[in-house]
Amino acid sequence: MDLTNLLGNSAAFLTTISFLPQAIKTIRSGNTRQLSLPMFLLFVSGVFIWILYGILNEQLPIILGNAITFLFAGTILVFKLRDLRK
Amino acid sequence: MDLTNLLGNSAAFLTTISFLPQAIKTIRSGNTRQLSLPMFLLFVSGVFIWILYGILNEQLPIILGNAITFLFAGTILVFKLRDLRK
Repeated sequence: MDLTNLLGNSAAFLTTISFLPQAIKTIRSGNTRQLSLPMFLLFVSGVFIWILYGILNEQLPIILGNAITFLFAGTILVFKLRDLRK
Repeated sequence: MDLTNLLGNSAAFLTTISFLPQAIKTIRSGNTRQLSLPMFLLFVSGVFIWILYGILNEQLPIILGNAITFLFAGTILVFKLRDLRK
């Protein structure tokens, strides 16, 4: 793996996995008041479109990476929406 | 612009801009307790490596998009670190 691939894979791994600790923290506390609803609406929408982009271009790494991010960020969004209804 | 480019540009725009409302919310409230420190450490590191990747590959859209995200997410990280010291 050359330097370019190593950098790309590291960057993709870090930005993909980063939403996991936030999802765990949010699930545990159930408190989402300081999380921005527009952020998670925009971000989850963007990640969903990345998945469509990956499917259209048959790029499995883009599909998989964004599917994982969608799962984590989507979970946080669901908690935020539930918190708003209280 | 074909469908693939339209999807890619829309997805990149949404995921890039999404951190702005969170940055604004965090700057206004100064309260970061429900934000995950590991999330922002991992995410900002990943975005920084994306910038290096873009520089190495001379891909200006990757450099610019991630520089904007780095600014927004980095601001949130600085507020989180300041909040921890209180």
